[in-house]
Order: sequence, then structure tokens, then C-alpha cells
Amino acid sequence: MLINLLKPGDAVLGFFLLKSMECKTSSNNKKYLDLTLADKTGEINGKLWDCTEEDETGFHEHILVKVKGLIGEWQNRLQLKIEKIRPAGPQDEVSMEDFIPTAPESSEQMYGVVLRYVEEIKNKDIQKIVSRIIAEKKDRLLFYPAAKQNHHAVKAGLLYHIKTMLVVAEKLSTVYPWINRDLLYGGIILHDMGKIDEMAAGEIGLIVDYTVEGQLLGHIVQGIKEIDQIAKEEGVDEEVSLLLQHMLLSHHYEPEFGSPKRPMIPEAELLHYIDMIDARMFDMKNALENTTQGQFSERVWVLHNRKLYKTSFHPPEGGDFEHAERRG
Amino acid sequence: MLINLLKPGDAVLGFFLLKSMECKTSSNNKKYLDLTLADKTGEINGKLWDCTEEDETGFHEHILVKVKGLIGEWQNRLQLKIEKIRPAGPQDEVSMEDFIPTAPESSEQMYGVVLRYVEEIKNKDIQKIVSRIIAEKKDRLLFYPAAKQNHHAVKAGLLYHIKTMLVVAEKLSTVYPWINRDLLYGGIILHDMGKIDEMAAGEIGLIVDYTVEGQLLGHIVQGIKEIDQIAKEEGVDEEVSLLLQHMLLSHHYEPEFGSPKRPMIPEAELLHYIDMIDARMFDMKNALENTTQGQFSERVWVLHNRKLYKTSFHPPEGGDFEHAERRG
Amino acid sequence: MLINLLKPGDAVLGFFLLKSMECKTSSNNKKYLDLTLADKTGEINGKLWDCTEEDETGFHEHILVKVKGLIGEWQNRLQLKIEKIRPAGPQDEVSMEDFIPTAPESSEQMYGVVLRYVEEIKNKDIQKIVSRIIAEKKDRLLFYPAAKQNHHAVKAGLLYHIKTMLVVAEKLSTVYPWINRDLLYGGIILHDMGKIDEMAAGEIGLIVDYTVEGQLLGHIVQGIKEIDQIAKEEGVDEEVSLLLQHMLLSHHYEPEFGSPKRPMIPEAELLHYIDMIDARMFDMKNALENTTQGQFSERVWVLHNRKLYKTSFHPPEGGDFEHAERRG
Amino acid sequence: MLINLLKPGDAVLGFFLLKSMECKTSSNNKKYLDLTLADKTGEINGKLWDCTEEDETGFHEHILVKVKGLIGEWQNRLQLKIEKIRPAGPQDEVSMEDFIPTAPESSEQMYGVVLRYVEEIKNKDIQKIVSRIIAEKKDRLLFYPAAKQNHHAVKAGLLYHIKTMLVVAEKLSTVYPWINRDLLYGGIILHDMGKIDEMAAGEIGLIVDYTVEGQLLGHIVQGIKEIDQIAKEEGVDEEVSLLLQHMLLSHHYEPEFGSPKRPMIPEAELLHYIDMIDARMFDMKNALENTTQGQFSERVWVLHNRKLYKTSFHPPEGGDFEHAERRG
Amino acid sequence: MLINLLKPGDAVLGFFLLKSMECKTSSNNKKYLDLTLADKTGEINGKLWDCTEEDETGFHEHILVKVKGLIGEWQNRLQLKIEKIRPAGPQDEVSMEDFIPTAPESSEQMYGVVLRYVEEIKNKDIQKIVSRIIAEKKDRLLFYPAAKQNHHAVKAGLLYHIKTMLVVAEKLSTVYPWINRDLLYGGIILHDMGKIDEMAAGEIGLIVDYTVEGQLLGHIVQGIKEIDQIAKEEGVDEEVSLLLQHMLLSHHYEPEFGSPKRPMIPEAELLHYIDMIDARMFDMKNALENTTQGQFSERVWVLHNRKLYKTSFHPPEGGDFEHAERRG
Amino acid sequence: MLINLLKPGDAVLGFFLLKSMECKTSSNNKKYLDLTLADKTGEINGKLWDCTEEDETGFHEHILVKVKGLIGEWQNRLQLKIEKIRPAGPQDEVSMEDFIPTAPESSEQMYGVVLRYVEEIKNKDIQKIVSRIIAEKKDRLLFYPAAKQNHHAVKAGLLYHIKTMLVVAEKLSTVYPWINRDLLYGGIILHDMGKIDEMAAGEIGLIVDYTVEGQLLGHIVQGIKEIDQIAKEEGVDEEVSLLLQHMLLSHHYEPEFGSPKRPMIPEAELLHYIDMIDARMFDMKNALENTTQGQFSERVWVLHNRKLYKTSFHPPEGGDFEHAERRG
Repeated sequence: MLINLLKPGDAVLGFFLLKSMECKTSSNNKKYLDLTLADKTGEINGKLWDCTEEDETGFHEHILVKVKGLIGEWQNRLQLKIEKIRPAGPQDEVSMEDFIPTAPESSEQMYGVVLRYVEEIKNKDIQKIVSRIIAEKKDRLLFYPAAKQNHHAVKAGLLYHIKTMLVVAEKLSTVYPWINRDLLYGGIILHDMGKIDEMAAGEIGLIVDYTVEGQLLGHIVQGIKEIDQIAKEEGVDEEVSLLLQHMLLSHHYEPEFGSPKRPMIPEAELLHYIDMIDARMFDMKNALENTTQGQFSERVWVLHNRKLYKTSFHPPEGGDFEHAERRG
Repeated sequence: MLINLLKPGDAVLGFFLLKSMECKTSSNNKKYLDLTLADKTGEINGKLWDCTEEDETGFHEHILVKVKGLIGEWQNRLQLKIEKIRPAGPQDEVSMEDFIPTAPESSEQMYGVVLRYVEEIKNKDIQKIVSRIIAEKKDRLLFYPAAKQNHHAVKAGLLYHIKTMLVVAEKLSTVYPWINRDLLYGGIILHDMGKIDEMAAGEIGLIVDYTVEGQLLGHIVQGIKEIDQIAKEEGVDEEVSLLLQHMLLSHHYEPEFGSPKRPMIPEAELLHYIDMIDARMFDMKNALENTTQGQFSERVWVLHNRKLYKTSFHPPEGGDFEHAERRG
Repeated sequence: MLINLLKPGDAVLGFFLLKSMECKTSSNNKKYLDLTLADKTGEINGKLWDCTEEDETGFHEHILVKVKGLIGEWQNRLQLKIEKIRPAGPQDEVSMEDFIPTAPESSEQMYGVVLRYVEEIKNKDIQKIVSRIIAEKKDRLLFYPAAKQNHHAVKAGLLYHIKTMLVVAEKLSTVYPWINRDLLYGGIILHDMGKIDEMAAGEIGLIVDYTVEGQLLGHIVQGIKEIDQIAKEEGVDEEVSLLLQHMLLSHHYEPEFGSPKRPMIPEAELLHYIDMIDARMFDMKNALENTTQGQFSERVWVLHNRKLYKTSFHPPEGGDFEHAERRG
Repeated sequence: MLINLLKPGDAVLGFFLLKSMECKTSSNNKKYLDLTLADKTGEINGKLWDCTEEDETGFHEHILVKVKGLIGEWQNRLQLKIEKIRPAGPQDEVSMEDFIPTAPESSEQMYGVVLRYVEEIKNKDIQKIVSRIIAEKKDRLLFYPAAKQNHHAVKAGLLYHIKTMLVVAEKLSTVYPWINRDLLYGGIILHDMGKIDEMAAGEIGLIVDYTVEGQLLGHIVQGIKEIDQIAKEEGVDEEVSLLLQHMLLSHHYEPEFGSPKRPMIPEAELLHYIDMIDARMFDMKNALENTTQGQFSERVWVLHNRKLYKTSFHPPEGGDFEHAERRG
Repeated sequence: MLINLLKPGDAVLGFFLLKSMECKTSSNNKKYLDLTLADKTGEINGKLWDCTEEDETGFHEHILVKVKGLIGEWQNRLQLKIEKIRPAGPQDEVSMEDFIPTAPESSEQMYGVVLRYVEEIKNKDIQKIVSRIIAEKKDRLLFYPAAKQNHHAVKAGLLYHIKTMLVVAEKLSTVYPWINRDLLYGGIILHDMGKIDEMAAGEIGLIVDYTVEGQLLGHIVQGIKEIDQIAKEEGVDEEVSLLLQHMLLSHHYEPEFGSPKRPMIPEAELLHYIDMIDARMFDMKNALENTTQGQFSERVWVLHNRKLYKTSFHPPEGGDFEHAERRG
Repeated sequence: MLINLLKPGDAVLGFFLLKSMECKTSSNNKKYLDLTLADKTGEINGKLWDCTEEDETGFHEHILVKVKGLIGEWQNRLQLKIEKIRPAGPQDEVSMEDFIPTAPESSEQMYGVVLRYVEEIKNKDIQKIVSRIIAEKKDRLLFYPAAKQNHHAVKAGLLYHIKTMLVVAEKLSTVYPWINRDLLYGGIILHDMGKIDEMAAGEIGLIVDYTVEGQLLGHIVQGIKEIDQIAKEEGVDEEVSLLLQHMLLSHHYEPEFGSPKRPMIPEAELLHYIDMIDARMFDMKNALENTTQGQFSERVWVLHNRKLYKTSFHPPEGGDFEHAERRG
């Protein structure tokens, strides 16, 4: 009974994550609960009509609930008309983590992969800075998403993004061997680290809000300051520190996307493109998973509001688009 | 005596490619020859003052010449004051190809690599289209540059660009295995093929001019029409043909760069980014080869007029930036 | 009882085109039908409250219905509260074509006009291409609109647009007699022909959707390919074919509107401006027909969201703005 | 010996308009005269080397001179090396007007055509305003160009532009008969009238400079103020005056081209497009007259820096592109 | 019981301005009144469910009403569920002006301040123009807002804006004493005067609509014409009149904001920046008054959709942010 | 014999700053020196023809020289043909500082004014940060210009800019008393402080070049890092430090001018506008000082390439535009 498989007329009986909840008054002046229910595959709006006072107070966000109801349609979107709803309890033997969209690999495993890349960095100054930052932020890296809504907005999405980019970087540096791999690895690991301070996330891996500092400065400047300070504390070479800061500063590439300087070293240029590729592949895979072969997807906001087309002959042979590398 | 090593005061005696030539009248009303001389490493302006009628008629573009002269400076640019100049002859035992900037691998070898990728394409329709086009254009592919002035504007630059992109694509498709490799390989091989009809190049691998069709339609539309026609002749699946055409149409990504449609399949998205990466790495490597460590390069027009910085600790260790993968 | 004359409080009894229909659930959880009803003069939203199962299944889109109801207002827009509704039958003696917004001249007559212009083309190559394409597409030309929502989105709107543009072209070519009339006529007839393959329209002359090819390539590229192929089949002069293709490619004028090349021949420049004039005059006439003298219209989306002003002294004398040239 | 026919090596002996003149010092520190010579077909740069004091003082701008010299080339442009030069005198029987690029019809005749259109205006208020303004400005209208450098920058070019636009308007209003012809004619006649106060022109029909008011306000605002004042003096209907002012204000269409408001009546919309068409046809005809069939022109600055293509089969039949409608 | 202090659950009993009113039909097909109620501190939406015919006809806009009801929430916005409502009468002893957002100083007093600045103008021509215009427009100046929705959209907001700008100008001209104070004062007083003719406002100081002339020409052109005419009537120096007109024309600075010319005198440059500062300070103060210390405001549309941050240590010491200079 | 008073034909005998110097070869192949000579009022190009080897080696940049020569014109610009030139020596009793464009007040005096503003800051945290930074940078503040070419590119121009902005801020804060003066003063003093590390200037107050860090990060990020570090060292309140950093980050206002965030507090908004006003007044005063009354200036690059108009009645009365507040 996965959300992305529901269709009008389905009867529903199962568990969901109660992602958000609001008590509202209908236009005929009756109270009802307006809910967002989620599982790993998506979200659906639910209505509990004519709700009682206990209904109002018996639930709160970010718990699991058991729901019985019927799927209808309202303004072209599915809606779950709830008949019964109760909080899940221990007897239900359901686990939160089965309901949260999560990176397809385990956090500890991905963290280990990143550590191995750090070990491969030959420049000791870069290694010092990177090692210290990922150690200090390890706790949060293990569950932080990479964004509130865009690409990699899943639990441990930031770590998954970093890890995948490192793999890409390793491969590209065999094609362009004159590239400084140390800078590239360092820049990739650090490029979005400021997001951990820019946004506040709960442990279930969803961004709750932006921090005050995040709004006033943004993760690029926050990340630069962190590198600067650690570099000074560690006494590393000034040029090295400067170049890593420049990579952060320029990785959005265009002023209107937050980078006042464009890349001035090839490693910064590559960082930008690897970041773009990994973000786009994540979002496109997502969009296509919910699309029928030979059809166009809905418009996807983060992809310049494009529709995507899913070829009718996809995947090439025996491959498995839906499950390949997903939730490993 | 390579051009990129010359400095004011140097006496010059050696062979050059006479790239362009014009007879002019100075402001004190004397005739002189204004020449562009080139070798593999760059170009220099030359002046033959007070030239005679034989001087005017004794040379033409695209031959090798032997020159004696002195390096001076004029408005911050080097200039060669020519004392003696004559066409090179058989006795000089110099070969044109030693003077033309050329891709770092042999054309036949690169063509062979591309063929191997074509063999790996499992979709027979894609393979048919691609095979036929690279066979038909083989003659010109072996020497065509990829542009008049931008990236890969060297002999066989187009082939080198395609071949490198294919290597990158193969590597990326191991990171994103759900991608349709057949489409990606096909799109890469075909994406700039229209340039062969858009521009006219001499066999020494320099673009002479744009064709009438090239100016009125551009290589994207030219390439699309070619795929369309061959697909019809070969009777291939319509969707396959359409998707390859879409990849051509969208690979510049933005309308103002010539793509009226943005990519609607992930393979088209990847094609765009692989194209960008390979072009940028080529241009940046070029710019940095002529830059001192710890210094900024000149502004580079094709890189949004940026200066590039060459790190003082480049390359990491024992690597060889200057010669790695250069002129094979 | 024309739709554009309805006002709140009116009782309605008559026939309408059922343009679209959806069964919805209200916020107090009852089913109702949400309908779009249309006649030649416009559209109105209708609600059938508390609908039964027969109501749900007894209707479908694109039929004529008889409706009894009352006009109300909802969020500043008129709404028809339906009391009774039934499909029209033969006994009603109403005809679909009386309810569809249609070009003001008969299709066959307009097609005849276009044919006469084709005969005036002296260049045999242009004539061959144009003749064949309008012959092959005649069936659809007779009812296709020129757009889904913008200008000339009426039955046979594309043909009406072409025909009017030809008349304008003929007149302008007497002012600028050095213009090549053959190219201009040819370009006009072909300029939007790709739309017939870009969009799918039902025979009642309304666009149902974009085709897959239409979305991946767009009507400009589709039209170019068609000319290219037919030109090759007919063995026409290459330059002629190329110029017609260039006219298609450049007729949107700006890259961001879909033209990667700007016009490079005066006939292409004229084609663009004639296209603009005819589209704008159509849209402005429409907007002003529903506006009171001395007042501004609503904002019109397709006219850069402008309001139009209807002068209080319009038309000059005894002219008849409302009916001039309307529905012939 | 027309300027547009000269080529390197030609010996020159003939009369020219001395359009501008400057005494300069060469880099070897000798004085020379730097001249711009013109006839109806174009301009050429001339040098009088080693000039004497009499040379310096014996000439001034805007006279005719007789010149003997030789055509050379300097930085890809033709240059006339002057051997002898003297002012033309009565005995030479040459007339200034044979040397100035001029509209192809006589001013008085064009003025008469405009008057006839004014008579056709049925709205007496519009007629009053227009009549008075063209009467008051008649003297200057007879020789003013429409611009300093762009389209219609020839003697009486403004009048020629107005007259041609009126002819186009008349023809278009038969295709769109619901258009208010009075407003359209009025708007066309007045649309650029402010240019007469924005720029100062000598009687030979060349703009000398912008006026202070022209620079601080621009011809659009200047024209609006003139209409406003005359309308008040003549006591015409306020709406009429307002609409004419709006047509002036909006006729450049885009804010960045000087129109803070977009057209809000169809007559203003048409005015804009008729203005564009006439300007573009003028500039394109000019550019193509100097281009070989089957070739591209130079880049033309006022046409977005485009090259134009002259078809190899132009004109259609027996037409005469070069001379059609040129210089009456 | 000020509107900006209301929260869900509050019982309401008091007087409000009935700003707008509409009779609607709910989705369960019952009539209700949809009202906007206002006081000096803000606006709230109100609903009178199941309204009778007397309810429909017993009220009209822009009167005071007494209301009893309950505050609820609907889609994250407060909503007043009305139980009783009646028009206020004389016995209620409430005064309209206590309910309208108004400039913080008395109109007569502000008008007096402006007059004193006019007296300080030493250039008699500028003084003549300014004196006459503010005298002629005095009636409306005393209550006109400066905008429909943006900055200073309060009763007498235009006068308050002018007066504050004059104070700023006086202070800046002591820092830049070479500035021509006369022009600056004149430009400030006149810069938005055309708004009085561009928009129609009721005496309670709210813009009702744009005038026809306002929409066709805009306040900048309207203001220029007024200066031009008065200057001619008063026989003032032409340059003076021209410079004031130029200041109006250029004070929006960018073409896309309505200024076809950028400032060409320093006084026009200053006028623009003083205008910006005063508008922004007004809007920001407003936004922050409703924000908690240490928090961000809602997004503010007129401030490029920014959120503002209210510092936790604001104001510095003993200052009184909330009431400083507010409603004097 | 000030440079801005020279005209063609003048004989020159006097001292100048030798700002830059280059040895070149003329087109007739002779050596000459190409010099830029400057005094406080401007710059002029000079040529020493047929220079000897001693000429080449006898001078270097940034010394004073005595020159005899004649003013000519070359391509509409003045040029000084040098007859004699020698370095100035002690016997000449000329002082470097008389030849360098310098702020109109003494550095020590301006520094004192800034200190007094620092004392007025009541927030001890802001005071601590500001005090320490201006103390640490005092040496360079006393002579640094604010830019390489734009506004305040004079000796001690940065200090003059800060000081003037503080005066403006003080005055504005009496008009908008709810503004936090401490933040505003702090933000002004710090806003461009990063420029001292972004650019390298010699003690004569001219920028020599950009530093590596300046190019890779820019003065905004450099300044933020400095505040961040000092704030941590001084243990100041985090919000205070953050707000000052935000003011730096946002003071260019638009992403394309280097500010990834727009101002979110009114003090940051004011900082931006005060910065703009002071820069523009400086540049406009400069441009007008060299312009005749009643005329337009040359186009000024830093003012969007505008021409400025100098009124014919400037200054109002007895004021002294040329010397007011200039060079104290």
C-alpha cells in the first residue's frame, strides 16, 4: 500500500508518517483535520471531517499513525478521506525509519567511503582541514538532507550527495589526469558543509527551518568562514585554505545563484559541474520513477519546470530502472 | 624556437606556418607585408617593412616559410620584425603537420576508439544511424577541428572531443547505471556532427569559413535533418530517431545559446554537461600551460573573460602538468 | 442566450457545448459535476450539485447538452448553477458547428484563396514544395486551430491566419516591390505548418494535446524537416529549400521565443512582422469586442498582460466594429 | 566614379562632398588632413599627407571639393590618398544636392501625399492637430533626416518614412477594417515629429547634433508636449489628444527602447509594427544593394549586427532590385 | 481591540471601517457576505454566513460598522466569523478618521512645512512653478496617499513623503554644498505630483482606481506636461523648466521602471536616491512593527519579496521603535 | 600650468608625476617613449620621439619629472610632444604630494572624525570590533584610495568616503530616529575595509594591483572573515557580529554586483544607499568640474556611460562650485 501506487477508489488501511497537521474550519463552518501523510514513496493529503476535540489534541507531527480511509480526488490531486486514525504504538511493530525517504545506502557505510577518499588526499593541509570538519560534523552528516525541497532532500541526502560526487570526481580525474585531485576531493567534501549550519533538521532527516545565520549569510559564506578559522587554527598553508574557500565561493557559478566569483581554477570548475550532474541525475531519476514508459512526467519545478520523457524502450536490456541502486 | 617561448629582443631564425598575409600601406605611405605566423604553440604577428613587388606575390597563405628576424613589442604584444623570409622547399625537410596545432592522439587511433564504442551500442537502431554517419563523414572527421576559435580548435579536434566525451560517458554510466548508455553514446557521437557541414575547413585542420547553410540554419538543425533522413532511409524506430534529434536540439541547453528546447531525458542532460566539462577542461588546460605557477593567466575570452589562477603547488606530486596527454 | 451576454440572476434554458467535465467532491463531502460549457461567444463554468451516479456517467466531453439553470457569481466570475441537464439528441435539431468558435470564413473558400496565391508563385521550386505540403495536409488544414490558447485558437484558425497574412503580404509587396514575393508567399504558407504535427486536434477544431514529437522538437524544427525532405524528393534547387527553412527557423525572431537564428533575408523579416500583426490584431479585436466604449478591458495574458482601451468614439463613422468581418 | 564602386588601385578624379575634416599629426610627427568624403552612394576616408598651412585653412566642412588621388587600403578599409584637392566653384557647375544621400522622391511631392492623407482624416480634432503641426514644421520636414545614423538617415528621410508608413497603413486598414484609420494616420504623421526638435540638422539634411532639450527629454516626450499644447489651444476633445499622446508614448514598445507604456489601443500596436517594417526594409535594402548575389553582406550594426544574405535568384523576374524606387 | 493584536479564539466587539464587501454563494450553495474590515493597524477578512436580503442591502463600502464575532483561522490567515453587524450611527460617537491609516503628522502642518521650503527657493522661476502647482493641488494634497498599495499608501501619504524628502534634502545639501538646492527642492515637491491626476482617491485617502489618462500616460508624463504648461504661462526661463521636467522624467532611474532617461544632473540623481530611501524606510518600519524581536517578518512583496529581520537588541537604548514618530 | 587647463598649441614647461612609461617602436621603426604624466587635476599622454638609450633607462614610474614641450592633438585627445625631460631633484623643491590627486581633507583629521563617531557607538560589542579594525588598519587607511578607477580613486579616498558617509548617516538618523545608529555607523566604517586587503596600493595612494586573495574571494568576503575572527577573539555577542557581516555581504545590493543576499535590516538598506549617494556625488562633481556651463560633459564610464549636463545658472548664488570643499 505504497503512496505512489494509490489511485481513486482505493480503500486504505495502513501506517503512515504524519508529516504535518492542521485543524481547520470548513466553509460550512465545521472543524476538520487537514493532514499530510507520507511514506518512503511520497505524500498524500488527508482529511478527517467533523473532527472532535480529542482528534485535535490526540496527534502531533512526526509520529506514525494507523489510518483507515478511502482515496478520492480533489482538483486533480488524490485525497484520502479518513474514516479512522490512531497513533501507532509499540504493539504495531512499525519503525519510523521505514517511512522516511532515505538515501539508498547506510550512513555509516557512506561515511566510511568518504573517509577513504580523505585518506587518499596527499596534500596534508587539505587533509587536515577536511578531516577535522567531517569529524566535527559527523553526527549531523549521518542524517542531514542536502536541501529542504530540491535535490537530495532525503535523510542522509547530503552525505549521499558528497559520496557520489567523490566517485564521479575519481573517475573524471583519470580522464583529465593533470587535475589536482586533492583540491577536487577537498572541495567536494566541503562544498555544501555550510548547509548543516544554514538549516536546522530534525533527526528524522527533514529540514525544519533556516537558521538566522543561514538566512543572513547563507551556507556559502558560512562554509568559507569555517574553513578559514580551522585553517588558521591548524596552521595550514594560506594558499591552500584560500583555494578551498574560493571553490566554495564559486561553486554556484553565477552571481544570481549566489556565487559572486566564477571558478578561477579548473578544480572549481569541475566541482560545479559534478555538483550539477549529481543533483540533476537525482531529481530526474525521481521524476521518471513515477512516470509511465512512453509518457511525459508532470512539470518538475526544480528542473526549470520541465516535463521529462520516459522512453518506451527503457532500460536497455534487463536493467532495472526502478530499483537500480535505490535504497540499496 | 617555439612561439610561446619568444620574448622581446630574441633573434629568430626558423620555420613557421604562414597563416594569413596582407599587403598594407603604412601611415608614411610605404608598403609592407602584415603576416600571421604560427607553429604548434601559438601565433605571432610579423611585419616585413618596405616590401617589394616580389614580396607581395611570392607568398600565399597556408604554406611554410623560413624567417629571419627580431622580436619587438608593439602595444604590449610581441611583433616579429622580419629581415628575411622565403617559402620552405623540399630541401628544408620540414613537414606541415609539425606546425599545426593538433589533437594529442592520432586520428586513426581515435577513430578506432569511437568505433569500439559504436560496437557497444546494443540498440540496433541507434547503432545503424551512428555507424552510417561516422562512416560517411570519416574523411573529414579525421582532420576537422571542433570550432573556429573556441575549444578544440585544433586539427582533428572534433574527433578528439567526441572520443574524450565517450570515455567520460562510460565512466559516468557506472555511477548512474539506470542511464541508457546507447542513447548517451549515440548523442555524443552525433551532437556536433553538423559542424562538418556548418563550417568549411582545409585539410590542415583550420576552419576557413562558415557555409551558407551553416549561417542560415546552424549545425544543430543541420545535424537533426541528417539524422532524420538517415533514420527514414534505414527504417529505424521513430522514437529512437526522435530522441537522438532531441538530444542534438537541446544540447546547448539555453535558447540564447541555440537550443530552443531544454533536455527532457536524462541522457540529453548528461550530454550537455559532458560537453561543457570537456570543452572547459580543454580551454583551461591551454590557458594554464602558458601561465606561471602562483600567477593569474591573461583574461580568456571563451571562459567568460575570466583570468585563471595556476596554483603554486601544482601538480600534486611528480605529475607532469605541461606534458600530460599533450601531443600524445 | 449567448454566453458573453449572461449576467448574475439570469435564468438559463438552452444548448451548449460540453467542453470539459469532472466529477468532484465538495468540502462537505458531496459529489458534484464541475463542467465547462461553451458556445461561439465564450465559456462559462457550471455546477451540478449533489449529482447522481447516472449524472456521472451520462455525459462525456465534446457533446452538446441542453441545460436549465441560474447564473450566480463565485469569486468575481459567473457560474451557472445547473438544475437540469441532458445530452442533446437528433430531435433537438442543433448542430455542433453552431457552438464552436470558428474562423469567420468558410474553410473551403479560404483554402481556395490560398491556392490562388500558390498559383501566383513564379518560382517553380517554391511552388512545388508549397503545393505538395498544402495538398498533403489539406484535410487537417480545413479545421486546425493555430494554437491551443493564443491567437487564432478557433476552428480553422490556422488557415484563416495564413490566408490573412497572404493578403497583407500582397499589399506590402506593392510598397516594397523589390521584395521576392515568391519567397514571402511560400514562407507564410509554410511558417506554422509544423503545428499540425506538433499538436493533436479533434475535428471540432480544438487542440487536445501536444504530440510527443511536438514536445521534443517543436513545430519549427518539424516544419523544417518536412520542407527538407520534400525538397529532396522533388529535386528542387538547394538554395530555395534552404531559404524556406531559414524563414521557418527565424520567424519567431528571438532565441527565447524559439528562433536560434534571426532573419537574414528581408522576406524572413517581413514574415515575422506580418505574423505578429495578424496575431495581435486577432487578439485585440477579440478583447475589445467584450469591452465597453470608453473603458479598459480585463488584462489579456497573451498581450503581455496588458489592458486594452476601447475608445469612446469608435468606430469612426457608421462602421461596425462588432460585426465587421466576423463569422463572415 | 561613385564611391560604392571604388576599389584598391583606382585613380580618382572628381567631385565629392567634404563631410568632415580634421588636421592631425602623424606618428612621425608630420601634419596631415584627415577627411571624410561622400557622395550619394557612400563615404570614403581621405588623407592629404604633409599638408601645408593653406591646406589646413582652405577648406571647411559641408562644401564640395574636387579631388585627384589614388585608392589604397588600410586595415581592410579603402582609403583615398589625395594628391590634389580644391574647393569646387561656380565654374564647376556641380550642385550640392547631387552629392547628398536623399530620399528617392521629391520633398514637395511627398509633402503633398501626406496632405492628402490628412484630408482623408474624418475626425476633425485629429485633423486639426495634425494639420497645424505639419504646417508649422513644414520648412524643416522638407529636408530633415529621420535619424543621425540609423534608418532613413538621408535628406528628407523623415518625410519619406512618414509617407511610406501612411501608404502601408492605408493598405493594412483594408485588411483590418475595424481599425480607426483616423487615429492610425494621425499617429503615423506625428510619431517622430519630436525628432525635429530633438536633433539639429543643417539644410543639407545631415544631423549635426542633439539639442539640449533632446538629450534631457527625448523626442517622444517632446512630441507629446507639443500635441498636448496644440490640443489645448485648439480646444479639441481631450480623449482624442490623449490617445495621440499615448500612441507617441508607446510606439517604441519596450521600456528599454524608450516607451514606458506598451500600446493599449490596436492603432498604437499597428503604428509600432508599421514603423518597424518601414525602418527594417529601408536598412535591409541599403545593405543588400552593396552585396553580391549569393553572398552575405557585412554585419549591419542597426540590424542587431546581423549579416544579410542576398539570394542568387533575386529579383524574381525582370524586376530591378538596384534601382526600383530609388532616387525617384 | 486593534486588528494587528487579534489572535485565534478572540471574541470581538467593536467598530471597524467596512473597506469592501461582496455577497457570495458558498460551495453548499448558501449566500454569505464576504467583508474586509479595517482599522488604523490593519485589515481582517470577515464572513457573515447565511446572510439575509437585508444584510445584502443594508451596508455599503466606506462606512463604519459595529461588529460582534469570533476570530478563527482559514488557510493560515485570521478570519472573523461575524455574529452581529450593523452600521454605526451618530449615537456611537465614532469618527471615520480614527479608522483610516493616516500619515503621522497633520496635513495642514505638513503643508506648512512644505511652504516654508518653497520660500527658501532662491530661483524665482522654480519658486513660481512650484508655488502655483502646490496651491492648485492643495485640496487633494491634504489627503492623497502616495500609492495604491506600495509605500505611503496612507491618507496624506503623498504629502508626508514630500515633506520628509525635503528634510532629507536639506540635510544632504549641507554635506554636498555644491548641489543646487533650488532644483532639488523643486524636483522633490513636483516629482510625484502627477499621481494626483493618475489615480482617483476618495476623501478618506484610499485610491479607488487609476484614471484613463493615468493608465495611458502615467504620472511621470502627466507631471511633465503640467510643468511645461505652467512654465509657459508664467514665462519662466526655459532651461529651468526643462531641468525640472528632466528630474521628473528620470526619477525612476531605470527604463523598466518608467524612466526613459537616466539622471543627467546631480540633483536628479539625488532626487532618485532620496525617494528610494524614504520609500524603503517607510515600508521597512511598517514591516518591522509587526515583527517580534529576534525574528524574521513575513515576505514583503514591495521589498523584492524579502523577509526582514528585527534585531533582538533593538532599539539601542530607551528609544521607542513602536511609537517613535508614529501617528504623531 | 594645470593639466586640465591645457589646450592645443600651448607650450609647456613644468613638473609632473611620471605615472607610467613604456618604450615603444613606431610604425617607421624608431624607438620612442610613451608616457603618462599627471598632476592633481588630471593626466596627459606624452611622447618623446627618437629616444636614446639613456632616455629609456633614465626614468622610472612614480617619480616627478620636469618637462618642456608642446601640446598637440591626436585622435581628438591632447598629446604632449616632449622636447626635454629630466627627473626632478632636491634643488627643484617640488613635493610628490602636490602632484597626486588627494582627498580634500587631511588624513589625520579625517581619521579623528571617524574616531569620534566610534566613540558615539553605544553598543560595546560593535565598538570593540570597529575600534580594533580601524586601529589595526590605520597605517594603510591614511593613504588608501577606495578604488583603482572608480569613485574616490584618490589618495586617502577610502577614509574620505567613510568619513563623509558617517556624516550623512548621522543626519539621516535624525529623520529616521528608529534606526539603530550603532549598526549603521559600524556598517559604514567596515563596509569597504576588505579593500585594503583586496588591492595593493603604494604609499602615493594609487592602486598597483589586486592581491591573489582579492581576486579569488573579493573584499566583501575578506571583510566578513575579518569581522568574524575579531568578534570571536573579542567574545562579542554573536548576533551583533552576524549583523555586521550581513551588512557587508548585502551592501552591493544585487547579486550581479557581488551581494548574494539583499539587505534584511533597515540599517543595511541605508548603508547601501548612503554608499551609492556618496560615490555618485563624488563622480558627478568630478565630471562637472571639467565641463562648461550650459554644456554636456563627455560620457562618464562609471556613471553608466552617461553624459552630465552642467546648468548655465550654477551655482545658485555666490556659491563656489569649483572649489567648495575641494582640497580643504
